[in-house]
Amino acid sequence: MTVYDELLAHQRQIEALSQISGRLGWDQETMMPRGAATQRAEEMAALEALLHERRTDPRIGDWLDKAVALDAVSNANIRQIRRAYERNIRVPGPLAAEIARVTSIAQGVWADARRDQDVAAFLPMLDHVVRLKREEGAALARGGDVYDALLGDYEHGATAADLSAMFGALRPRLVALRDQIRGKPVPPAPHGSFGEEAQLALSQKLALTFGYDLSRGRIDKAVHPFSSGSGSDVRITMRTDPSDPFNAIYSTIHETGHAAYEQGIDPAFALTPLGQGVSMGVHESQSRIYENQLGRSRAFTGWLFGEMREAFGDFGIDDPQAFYASVNRVTDGYIRTEADEVQYNLHVMLRFDLEQALMRGDLTVGDLEAAWNDRFLADFGAAVDKPSNGVLQDVHWSVGLFGYFPTYTLGNVYAGCLHAALCRAVPDLDADLARGDTRRATRWLRAMVQQHGALFEPREVIARAIGGEPDEGPLLDYLEAKFGALYGL
Amino acid sequence: MTVYDELLAHQRQIEALSQISGRLGWDQETMMPRGAATQRAEEMAALEALLHERRTDPRIGDWLDKAVALDAVSNANIRQIRRAYERNIRVPGPLAAEIARVTSIAQGVWADARRDQDVAAFLPMLDHVVRLKREEGAALARGGDVYDALLGDYEHGATAADLSAMFGALRPRLVALRDQIRGKPVPPAPHGSFGEEAQLALSQKLALTFGYDLSRGRIDKAVHPFSSGSGSDVRITMRTDPSDPFNAIYSTIHETGHAAYEQGIDPAFALTPLGQGVSMGVHESQSRIYENQLGRSRAFTGWLFGEMREAFGDFGIDDPQAFYASVNRVTDGYIRTEADEVQYNLHVMLRFDLEQALMRGDLTVGDLEAAWNDRFLADFGAAVDKPSNGVLQDVHWSVGLFGYFPTYTLGNVYAGCLHAALCRAVPDLDADLARGDTRRATRWLRAMVQQHGALFEPREVIARAIGGEPDEGPLLDYLEAKFGALYGL
Repeated sequence: MTVYDELLAHQRQIEALSQISGRLGWDQETMMPRGAATQRAEEMAALEALLHERRTDPRIGDWLDKAVALDAVSNANIRQIRRAYERNIRVPGPLAAEIARVTSIAQGVWADARRDQDVAAFLPMLDHVVRLKREEGAALARGGDVYDALLGDYEHGATAADLSAMFGALRPRLVALRDQIRGKPVPPAPHGSFGEEAQLALSQKLALTFGYDLSRGRIDKAVHPFSSGSGSDVRITMRTDPSDPFNAIYSTIHETGHAAYEQGIDPAFALTPLGQGVSMGVHESQSRIYENQLGRSRAFTGWLFGEMREAFGDFGIDDPQAFYASVNRVTDGYIRTEADEVQYNLHVMLRFDLEQALMRGDLTVGDLEAAWNDRFLADFGAAVDKPSNGVLQDVHWSVGLFGYFPTYTLGNVYAGCLHAALCRAVPDLDADLARGDTRRATRWLRAMVQQHGALFEPREVIARAIGGEPDEGPLLDYLEAKFGALYGL
Repeated sequence: MTVYDELLAHQRQIEALSQISGRLGWDQETMMPRGAATQRAEEMAALEALLHERRTDPRIGDWLDKAVALDAVSNANIRQIRRAYERNIRVPGPLAAEIARVTSIAQGVWADARRDQDVAAFLPMLDHVVRLKREEGAALARGGDVYDALLGDYEHGATAADLSAMFGALRPRLVALRDQIRGKPVPPAPHGSFGEEAQLALSQKLALTFGYDLSRGRIDKAVHPFSSGSGSDVRITMRTDPSDPFNAIYSTIHETGHAAYEQGIDPAFALTPLGQGVSMGVHESQSRIYENQLGRSRAFTGWLFGEMREAFGDFGIDDPQAFYASVNRVTDGYIRTEADEVQYNLHVMLRFDLEQALMRGDLTVGDLEAAWNDRFLADFGAAVDKPSNGVLQDVHWSVGLFGYFPTYTLGNVYAGCLHAALCRAVPDLDADLARGDTRRATRWLRAMVQQHGALFEPREVIARAIGGEPDEGPLLDYLEAKFGALYGL
């Protein structure tokens, strides 16, 4: 065995245990009896402690000193292992354990506070989480920027400065587009009876339509849609809303995009650092292009309209064009996850700025709600009516995800770039989509992005796919063209 | 922290990781996509390697040397930890890993061989498993009896000699009873249409009737019924057979018995060595008393008859007495798991003798099929017609379970003793059962057996419950009385 082989064998164990941890997370959200929560927390803590031990094993440092890369794959493996190791040894074990412990409690406190509209009940926990994450960020940053250090966990190579510049370029055109649409009549939403069985069946069909492989995955109901696992066990969840069929449909297509990325990775990378999506931004580019650029296109919704009629009968929308408008309604609303393509990124920007201020100490947790509400009024022209529509709406901060939000918008920007390149590569794509056939689109995405897993750096894999540096232009052009036509601007 | 506290903290990690391993086993049989098998095997191997490392950590030896027991609970914890540690350090790591690897392959080979009726295809694998288990048994036995050493993994304190004596006392009266019944007409089986939904609903009702707590468990379909997990996450599975409703009903009651034991253990023992059933024999006593002495009683089947009629309408049996006879049909058959209460233990004795001979080197794998068929003819008066009805019928040997089979009969003997004691403690039990009310019965079992987990030794917990040493007498008396009356002997 070479030193590299030893290093990789150790890493395979880490990857295998991480997959187990992910599977338990899935179980917790889908299958676990409610009375098992406390015991499960102890089980997970035991596993995480072991994982931490493995991840910070000093032998990794020795192996890294001596390992020799022979090709692009071993080079990328070594790069990814080194990055993770150097990150993990910077965070003291007790701090890592404390973050795990506190965030697992904080999530429950947040859920209760949101239900009870009681911000004050959540603030002490959030304050604790913020302090711990600042400590972690400082340990990671070693004198550099705390927020950038945390952001790097989700998007290696991204910086707040670069993202701010990108968001600065996005904002004026998004706001102008949104403001132009505001004066126009809002297309009607579907109404009717949307039975759960029919929604589940349609969702499954949509997942398969977008290439989801059920022999290496499964679909279950959960409170929140998510995708989990890598390699040959990539599971997705969905939910149904009896009055809104788009909820199930588009969350399923979104999660199928995430799953397609994982399922599309070269099987030779399984249980290695390359065997998973390379970053949250690139992951989101896959879920978003499936959901929006493909799933909400005029061509695809034409086919989907027929499927909807078949599944639900009459739902008050009589032709494909009206259905397309309905799928792409732009409406005022408080909730990020329900936002349309035009306004979604404005919701992200709000969070991006507030969480930077929290992490850099420019905003206290005590002032957070007021800051949120002021900013929401400025950005969206509406006063937040209750905390569950405002500062308590997202789970992220309660579980310590600071630096995660901007990757959503980065994913949208990447999806815009990929879509433009895909349309150049497959000029008659709409003819496929109009038949509900996504095969050429998904094959292109697999070949250009998905199969590589973490072989290339996040920005690099997108640049290779599109043949140039990614920027916000294609997303803005796409949005202005699509919504300009839809709203007659 | 005292030394004992350190020891127990380490052990809690082991217990937590074991629970995770069990949960993954459950997932594999119920939820896992079929394409994930190879990856899962590697994930499990990584977890098992870690568990082995923890279980053989030399610090355990140091802690055990110095730990001081302060009460019965700490005394029992130390006893159980010491026993497991001394067992685990006797088996060389590479041998343990090889057994895990080979048995996981052998199980698949066995399943294919059974499907194809191809004994020869299985024999090389079985030979490998037998050699490894003999090696393990020799390492455990350190000059003592190899079979006893393996048996001790499932039933501490039991010896082949004691079990042989017990089986020797059981056999003549069981054979005499079986032979008397053979001349009598066989009661009819139910016939009709037994829809899956109705079977699932009835099974769930039966599990709840026997006290299964769904807030700390769940019921799913699987190819084979089983119970898994301890503490607050104890899951059971069931299967349905469209032509035989008793399959689902009695396997559910059986698994509920196993689950009731785990769910009934003092919650203070969770994630300690005391927080699980103390042995396979005691475990089986709980599943068997639920399934047979309670579930197949005249009183309970009277209530069940009404439930069956409600669930399935007419199924060709018109009164509770005929239904009782149908539930308790004694018929010829090749398959252990389908055997009636009278003949079940004869199936076990056949395996017990053959596996002892295999482990002690008195029988080669090459001669096993002939030995099985000869013995079956002698014991049951019928020639085995195909391997799936003979030597290939059980999974046990393929996965290395040598010494497991006799615990089934030990469980039946214990169930006989417990039932006799229960009837003394609750003389009007039948009045409850006739209403489908098992609460007084299950409460007694919980108080006398289940709550103690592994606090007492296997035989000891039964002796305490029944107020004397357990033996085969009550089981034989019960069977002779029940089947004597049923068949008019």
